[in-house]
This record gives sequence, C-alpha cells and structure tokens, in this order.
Amino acid sequence: MADILAALRSLMASHSPPLDALAVPSEDYHQSEYVSARDKRRAFVSGFTGSAGLALITMNEARLWTDGRYFLQASQELSDQWKLMRLGEDPGVDIWMADNLPNNAAVGIDPWCISVDTAQRWERAFTKKRQKLVQTSTNLVDEVWKNRPPAETNPVIIQPVEFAGRSVADKLEDLRERLMQEKAQGIIITALDEVAWLYNVRGTDVSYCPVVHAFAIVTSKSAFFYVDKKKVSSEVNSHMEENGIEVREYGEVSSDVALLASNQLRPSPVTDITENDINEEEEKTCGFIWVDPGSCCYALYSKLDSDKVVLQQSPLAIAKAIKNPVELDGLRKAHIRDGAAVVQYLVWLDKQMQENYGAAGYFLEVESKNKKQQSSETMKLTEVSASDKLESFRASKEHFRGLSFPTISSVGPNAAIIHYSPDAETCSELDPDSIYLFDSGAQYQDGTTDITRTVHFGKPSSHEKACYTAVLKGHISLGNARFPSGTAGHTLDILARVPLWKDGLDYRHGTGHGIGSYLNVHEGPHLISFRTPARHVPLQASMTVTDEPGYYEDGNFGIRLENVLVIKEADTKFNFGDKGYLAFEHITWAPYQKKLIDQSLLTPEEIEWVNSYHSTCRDILAPYLDESEMAWLKRSTEPLSV
Amino acid sequence: MADILAALRSLMASHSPPLDALAVPSEDYHQSEYVSARDKRRAFVSGFTGSAGLALITMNEARLWTDGRYFLQASQELSDQWKLMRLGEDPGVDIWMADNLPNNAAVGIDPWCISVDTAQRWERAFTKKRQKLVQTSTNLVDEVWKNRPPAETNPVIIQPVEFAGRSVADKLEDLRERLMQEKAQGIIITALDEVAWLYNVRGTDVSYCPVVHAFAIVTSKSAFFYVDKKKVSSEVNSHMEENGIEVREYGEVSSDVALLASNQLRPSPVTDITENDINEEEEKTCGFIWVDPGSCCYALYSKLDSDKVVLQQSPLAIAKAIKNPVELDGLRKAHIRDGAAVVQYLVWLDKQMQENYGAAGYFLEVESKNKKQQSSETMKLTEVSASDKLESFRASKEHFRGLSFPTISSVGPNAAIIHYSPDAETCSELDPDSIYLFDSGAQYQDGTTDITRTVHFGKPSSHEKACYTAVLKGHISLGNARFPSGTAGHTLDILARVPLWKDGLDYRHGTGHGIGSYLNVHEGPHLISFRTPARHVPLQASMTVTDEPGYYEDGNFGIRLENVLVIKEADTKFNFGDKGYLAFEHITWAPYQKKLIDQSLLTPEEIEWVNSYHSTCRDILAPYLDESEMAWLKRSTEPLSV
Repeated sequence: MADILAALRSLMASHSPPLDALAVPSEDYHQSEYVSARDKRRAFVSGFTGSAGLALITMNEARLWTDGRYFLQASQELSDQWKLMRLGEDPGVDIWMADNLPNNAAVGIDPWCISVDTAQRWERAFTKKRQKLVQTSTNLVDEVWKNRPPAETNPVIIQPVEFAGRSVADKLEDLRERLMQEKAQGIIITALDEVAWLYNVRGTDVSYCPVVHAFAIVTSKSAFFYVDKKKVSSEVNSHMEENGIEVREYGEVSSDVALLASNQLRPSPVTDITENDINEEEEKTCGFIWVDPGSCCYALYSKLDSDKVVLQQSPLAIAKAIKNPVELDGLRKAHIRDGAAVVQYLVWLDKQMQENYGAAGYFLEVESKNKKQQSSETMKLTEVSASDKLESFRASKEHFRGLSFPTISSVGPNAAIIHYSPDAETCSELDPDSIYLFDSGAQYQDGTTDITRTVHFGKPSSHEKACYTAVLKGHISLGNARFPSGTAGHTLDILARVPLWKDGLDYRHGTGHGIGSYLNVHEGPHLISFRTPARHVPLQASMTVTDEPGYYEDGNFGIRLENVLVIKEADTKFNFGDKGYLAFEHITWAPYQKKLIDQSLLTPEEIEWVNSYHSTCRDILAPYLDESEMAWLKRSTEPLSV
Repeated sequence: MADILAALRSLMASHSPPLDALAVPSEDYHQSEYVSARDKRRAFVSGFTGSAGLALITMNEARLWTDGRYFLQASQELSDQWKLMRLGEDPGVDIWMADNLPNNAAVGIDPWCISVDTAQRWERAFTKKRQKLVQTSTNLVDEVWKNRPPAETNPVIIQPVEFAGRSVADKLEDLRERLMQEKAQGIIITALDEVAWLYNVRGTDVSYCPVVHAFAIVTSKSAFFYVDKKKVSSEVNSHMEENGIEVREYGEVSSDVALLASNQLRPSPVTDITENDINEEEEKTCGFIWVDPGSCCYALYSKLDSDKVVLQQSPLAIAKAIKNPVELDGLRKAHIRDGAAVVQYLVWLDKQMQENYGAAGYFLEVESKNKKQQSSETMKLTEVSASDKLESFRASKEHFRGLSFPTISSVGPNAAIIHYSPDAETCSELDPDSIYLFDSGAQYQDGTTDITRTVHFGKPSSHEKACYTAVLKGHISLGNARFPSGTAGHTLDILARVPLWKDGLDYRHGTGHGIGSYLNVHEGPHLISFRTPARHVPLQASMTVTDEPGYYEDGNFGIRLENVLVIKEADTKFNFGDKGYLAFEHITWAPYQKKLIDQSLLTPEEIEWVNSYHSTCRDILAPYLDESEMAWLKRSTEPLSV
C-alpha cells in the first residue's frame, strides 16, 4: 500500500499542473455502485473493499470517506496511512477539500469516474479559495496498477419479452415521447442498468449485476449501442437491427457525443438513407441533449455545450422503477422460489447446528449442550461454507442466474458489520450461542431478490430479543403504512425507527432501496432513507422497495429483517385531496423466528400481522418444499397467541 | 378593488423602467408574519386577509399565492379579478414568473418588503429569460393607498430579567462570541422578535405580537437600537445606556448599514472615547457582516459588499428558540393559567348551550331537544361573542397582556377554514348539533400560549368521532415520540398523519411551530412540517413546539387538537451512537372531549396516555378553579376504561 501511495504521489507531482490532491472514487465510467474487478480502483489504492467510498490522496495524507454501513469494516481494513472520514459525522469531501487544501489547489480526477453532479458540487465548493478540479487525461491509478485485471469479454444476452414485459420498440417510443416533451434532440444513457433495460439485454460484465459495459445514445429517429463488439453475437446483432439500433464500439461514444453536440451524429449508411434525410431536417429544429447529472460522467458532459443540455434525471430511471405487470408477476414468482430456498437453508442449518454443535436448535429457547463438540474439520460450518449451501439451494431453482450481491453471512460480532463480507480463509465458525444474520439474494431471469433474516439456535438473551422485537416492530410499521400519492420514501423512513428510538436505539443505514427485474439489486431513483434526498422522488404504484431496519451493537451482535415490498394503490375508506393513497404488498416469504420475538412488546395488531404473514408463507411455499421441510415451516409459523 | 389595480397599473406603466409585474408580499420591512395595519399592503390590494400570501399584478392579470391553510378563505375573499394560486399544487411564484412573463420582463418590488433569500431565488429563476427584479424607490401600494393608517407611536416596554431570564449584557456577550467565531465584524438584526429578545424590550406596534418596530446593529464593541425615539421613555433610555446600546432613529438604519459596510459606523461621542479608539483598531482586523437572508430585507443587504457578508441564519434565532430555565418556568405557569381559562370557558359554554340552545351538553351524546329555541337576540351566542367571553376569562388571569393571535372560533363548516377569522357582523351562531373548534392563545408577561380544542354539545356523527379519534391518535403519537438529537421536525411530521392516512385522510398544514416567551406565537427557526425545509434545523432540548394535527372537510366541519410541547432530554434505556435522545413534555392543560373519542380505535397505550394527561389536568388546574368548575373538570376527565 505504501508503494502505491508513493507511486501515485510521484505521478501527482509530475502531472501538469502538479496535483495537490487526487480523488479516487468507487465508481466506474458509468457511475455504478457495483463495479467489475478491473474498476475497483478505490479498493486497490486504499485496501477498503466496501461498495461505497471515496479515497483522497494528498502529498502527505490519505483519507477515505464512507457511510455508516461501512464505519466498522473500513476501520478494520484501512492501514495506518489512511484516515477514516465518517459521512454524516465528519465534513463531506467537498467541504473538507475546500477547508483544508490550500488556495489555488489542483484536485485531480479521472473525468470518466465522476458524475456531473459531484463534479459541479465540488467546483462550487472550490470557488471560495480558487481551487480547481483538474481532469487527468489518463487514470493515474491505472498507471500504477501492475496486475490490473483484463477487460471482460462476456457475451451480451437477450432478455426476452416474456420476462421483460415490454418490447424495445415500445420502450423507445415512450422514451422519444419524453424527449419531445422536454424538447430534447437526444439523450445519452450512461447507467448500465438503464442501457440493459432499454434494449432488453443482460450480461455478466459485473459480478452480481447482470449488465453489459455499454452506453446508449437515442435521438428522435436513431439509436446507438456502444459496446465491445466481441460481446455481440449475430443473434444480438439481429435483435438490435430489428429495433433500429446501431451497434458501435464502446470507445466510439466519446467522439459520437461530440458529433451529437454539433448535431452531426448520423446512423451509418446501411440503414434507410431517405429516412435519414428527413431526420436531419427534424433534428435541426431542436438542439437540447438530455443528460442525467447523477449517472453521466464529467468526461462526456464536458463535450457538450452546457447551454444546450437538459440536466435532469434520466426518464428511464422512473420508467424502469415502475415495474410492468409481467415484471411484477416475475418478481412475485422469483421471490416465492427464493423464499423456499431460504426455508430449505434454515431447515438444513437447524439440523447441522443441532447435530454438529449441540445446539438446542431453531425452536427451543435453551442453551446449547456442549458448545465445542463438533467432531472434525469436515463437519465445521463457517460463514462461507454455510452461505455456499444457501447458494446451492437457490441454484436448484428455476431461472437461477447467480447471486444478486455477495452474501452477508455473519455470526455474532460480525453481524454488527452491516455489509460484512466473509472471507473463506479467515471467517468465523457458526456458533449455537450467537446470533446469525444472513442477507442474501439471487438473480433469476424473472426477477431479482433480496432478503435478510436473523436467527439464533440457542438461548438468545432478553436484550437480543428486545432488540429483535423492536426491529420487527419497525419492519411491520413501515410495511403497513398507507400514505398519499406524492410522498417520498424519505418521509416514511422514521416509521421503521420509532420503536428503536423509544429505547435510544438506531441504525446507521437507510431503510429501503428499489430492486430490479433481473437487474441491479439496488435500484433508484427512489429510496427510503433518513438522509435528506438530493431530489424529491415520490413513491409510485408498482415500484419495488425493501423494508430493512436493523440494530447493530459493535463487538456483540447485529440484527436486520428485510422483505421486498411492491407499492400498490391502497383501498382507503376516503381519498382526501383526491390524491390517491398508496400501500405496500410484501412479496418476500420466509418466517421470522418466534423465539427471538418478545411477544409482550407487540400490539395485538402486530401479532395479527405476523400470524397472517406466517400463514401466507405456509400456503405460498408449500409447492416448493418436501414433507420434512413443510413440517419445519409449519412449526415455525404456528400462530402467536393474541 | 378594480380602482386599486387600475391605479397600480398606471404607476407600473409610468415607472422607469416600466414594470411588467408588481409583487406585493405580505411582509413588512422586517419580514414579519403578523404586520401592523399600515403594513397590510397585500390585503389592501387583493382583499385577501390571511397572514400569508403574495400578490402579483401584471398589466392584465392579478394572482395571489397562498398555502393550504388559506385555500378556502382566499377563494371566498378574492374578487373575480384575482386568480388563486395554491402553493404545493400550482407552480411557485418564481417559477410562474419565469415561465409566464416575457423575456426581459421587469418585476417591481419594494426592496424593504422582500427578504434576501426570496429576492435571490427570484433572480436565479429570472436568468433564463433575462428577466429582472427592479427595486422601486417608493412602495407603489403606499402611493395609491389613500387612507393608510398612520405609524404607531406606542411606548417601548422593558421586559424585566425576572421574566426574560437573562440580562441584555449576557445576551450581548454570547452574541459577540458568535460574531468572533464567524469572524464577523457586526450583525444587522432585522427580525422584530430578535430585536425585542436581545434587548429585553417589548411593545405593542403589531397586534398580537408584543414587539417594537425596530432594527438593531451589534458590533464587537458597539450596539444600536433603531426606533422611533418618541416611543422611548427615559427609563428605556437608561436601560439601553446601561447596556451600552445607543438609541437612534428608525430611519437611520439605512445610512448606518452603509457606514457599517465601509467600517465607519461608530457610537456617538457621548460614550467612552478611549475605548472607541481601541475598537477601531480591533474592528479593522475583520470585515464580515452577518445578515440573516430569511429576515433581512433586500434594501439593507444591497448596501453591503456581497463578498463581505456572512449570509446565514441569525445566531439569535436558535438562542431565542432554546428557552432558558426562567422562560420555561414562566411558560409552564402561563399555560396552567391559560388552561384554567379554557376550562372556565368550556364550563360556561356548556351551560349556555344547554340553557339557550336546548343542547344535550358537553357530556351527553344525545341530540339537542329544540334546536331553534333560543329566546332573544341578547341571549344569542355567536362565534365572536363566544370568543369575547373566552378572552375575558384569560384577561382575568395574572400577567395577561392580550391575545397572541386572532381567536379562531368556528362552528361547523367554518371550522374547515383552517385560519378562520370570524367577523362580528357576519359570523355564525353557535349550533348544538355542529362541531365547534376554537384555536386561541394569549400573551402573558411570563409566556405566550396557543391551544386548540374541538367540541360538540349534541350528538356527533360516527364519522366525526372517527375523524376526531384519528386526529387525537396522531396528536398522541407525535407527543410521545422519542428521537435522536439532530432530528429535524420535518422528520417527525408524519407521526401525526399516519392514523389519518390509514383512512385516506390528511390535512393541508404543518403539524407544529415554535412559540415565544411573551413574543411571537409563531417562532422559528424550527418547525414540524411535511414541507421540505430550506435548511435542516434540528430540534433541541428546551425548545417549544406545538403538536396540532387536524382534519377538515370543506362545507361540513373541521377538527384540530393542539398542545404546546417543550423538548426535553429523554430518559432512554440506551444511547446508541452517543447522540442523546429527546422527548416532549406537554405544557398545555385542558381536557379532550371523551364524547368525541371512539375508544375502540385507541390502543391500550393511547387510552393510558389520555387518562394520565387528564389526571394531571385535574391536579394542575385545581388551584385556579372554583368548586363547580372543578366538578365539571372532574367529570370531563374521568378515566376511559382500559
């Protein structure tokens, strides 16, 4: 690590102009949350492997900013050379740079790896001391990264309409209508999942996210797909051609954006020339280009005339977030198969814990008999070997295509690391006397899943039970909310926290995120979070969102419960203000552990809700379980007495 | 009205440059919410008398923007010449002007009546079409206002330390410390309540708000009080002199701000000259001037060098909002006396309704016997005569100084007008078969009060009861909240709405506002509201805030319940994140009407809370009530059975 910093500082010093600081964000050229191995530049320079964070290197300091999910993990992974900056507690990176870097300081950044939003926010902060953002012509990290993994060449896969629910033609028609409304001549689509969604394609370029490294440009009459052509089969080529989309090399996007800016971007002459002539006429009449400042990189934006840019959220963000009926149907079905896999895992784990660890088991609230009894290394259950088993249950299900994120399989104190990622070599062994939290999900061709359950195979303490119950109360309260149309997730976040706040407890992460249809497990633009959002994004019917409050006690244990919800119209008695009211439908199915519930803390309504949810679990999962699994599920879903 | 618009349009046309639009805001030179009669320019031009709103007059249109509290009232008061613009539903005034006024349009404004914040927001909106904000050198409305009331000449009154709790010297010391921290050479204090609070003075220049029309400027060593000197007695002069404050004429603030900008503002030579010499030395070292962009008018701000301005919330806003122990003690006592007056009023009203209107009364859930029975005009009870009686009960209490806002005394459909203001000539008669809502408060020298109760003297419908109960549930839920330090009121707002939202109900106003110590009944900077706040203002211990959800059915009835709460440290079991947790203390004391509560909708915890609150009402109000009043209170606070 010391070598890397030294090498970077030497490049910073010899840069023209010399750089006072170099920013290394987590994101790739598409501002992705999850990136491919070769794009993990921030992890490479800092050693911190979490999904979110920004490294800043000055001549004598190195600081890493990350959010509450990663405070503990970052403090463990960062070497002495690094100082951890906690978002929400310490000043943000823009404020810190403005305050701490000298007058006229030059801050280097690869303009492909920073969004327009972030770059502009930094530049605003920089004005006070006349500091400047310097776009480096190469990525300095890549220059010092000796064994950087090679570029992927995974094939592009077509997502058939039977799963996508809408044809590319229909999606393009809607998009062009939106362009017309905003008087935009064209749009540059930079977010990987938006490109995949719009063109009904998927890929395997990024672990866990079934996307292709690609850009798209769409104008009123033309459409382009910028991708490594080696990834494009003849079948995919036909799919594109049928939809009037021209496939171009990934690197061409840069010059094509410049052409677009000067209204000279044209399809290659293989397509109908007469029609092109008409296009030219039409396209000349308007000149704005739509760019999403959150996902478009500064490099592409800088090629445009800023007076001719519509700088607002991509219209695909909402279009993708509002699932169509086919996607909703697929999501529901995928979550049922996924719930069955989770129950099968719990049944298996329960047996293992009893047989190998002398645990009282899932049902009995009794301490384990002989803690260290397990016989041999081969019988040893670790966080990683357990999660491998969970993956195998999922892999046996129809339409399985892989996991949707690295499984968080965490025992005792590890469960307090919110985004814990166990390592096969060093991870903990399962423990019958500790809480075990698993947060996991899969990609099925008909939908993406994400579920968290927290369990105990021995005798949980009354404190653990009180905390589990408070988390469950928050989870129920949010899931049962009804709210007027126009309400943003930000407003609802508190509902999941109130029961924890009563006892002076809280959690340092948001409460819910959207989830894709065989796409990213974290999908915007909506969010349920305590953080003040940059823009107001109302929740809308047919959006998906998770409901995942938690509680984490550093060094002791962690608790989280997570279901995926679908937003639906609420059947309220009245409709004040003619706004329309919304509610949630749970689509995740797996039991809560009754042993961890302190029933005296639940209201009759909450008990009724748990019983009703559990009863549905039985009915809905039955077709996927064998007799013994079903017997286990029945026992685990026996009603709580009201 | 037509004449006024014509006269204004003629002035607009002859203005140099000619004005395409003239904005007439509600606010006075101090950006006050409540203004004196001569400052009610917006009401004069538009006829709309609500406390908040903005009139915009173009050559062929007149539009009035107001918020949800006033939609109904404004639609009734505005003539055909005016179009009502609903905030939150229609585009805001800046957006509307930018979109609808022509390129290069000139929008006239009296720069004394618009805040820096608003002016800058408008100017940002105007850039797109090169529109401009034109500061008129006189107020055009004043020019056409023939019978404008004369300026007030009410005496300035000293608020003694036994009520204020802190001396002026201490307050000035704290303020100067804050100036040092922000490297500010001085501050211009423009909000009337901030001037009154800082200098421990009160006045009667504005109805309901015990403030004086005055500005203040404070530098590291000097302090000025700009006021009509006719209002200043020799006693007040001595008070100022003792605290090193120089009294200057109100109009001098303008030239003094210019002197301050060029670092030439000096106290008159009567004060110690040696010390001044030292000041000059010190004050030259720093040059920033602190201005609150929300309360400072554009006129004064325009005299400053914008590079030398600290443009942020006045440090007095928070200092004033966090009550000191003496203020808290006074507020608690004032609210007890005020609660006794409210109970006396209810006892009296109950008797009147039974005797004059054949009502079943406060306690019985029975329809009135003979509705139209009341004998003579002299016995007639109207919204205004009833509220006059309420005022008389308050006026009999110690330290009473007047009302804190115009009493909202509203029967049936009038109760749906959120800020209803009954007129003696035209107001409704009390009705034993209709809901009666009264929202009222007083100024006592030891504290300001604000309370709302909703009652029925006959047989309420089950729908009215369900709505009352939903409002009560929200009121309880917010009042019982515990939350981590750093939480803003915005986050808590939803707690009061959830029970209404369950049924598809809502209300179009915020849920709570701060309240002054013998000062404004609406006091910032914090707020409990669904609207996204301009800035994040965390709730802090020893702040006051109201808890007042409601429900309004146009044409039928309105319900609101309001208590004042004091924020206090919560005694939570844990303290996650070492943040400290906060909770509320109710300081308002008057019963909820049990007849209007549908007990089947309350949880056991809610019932327990009502019973405990009612029990405290009895104990705390007993010393102020006679035997028959106490008997009534006992009956009205009998516990609900759990």
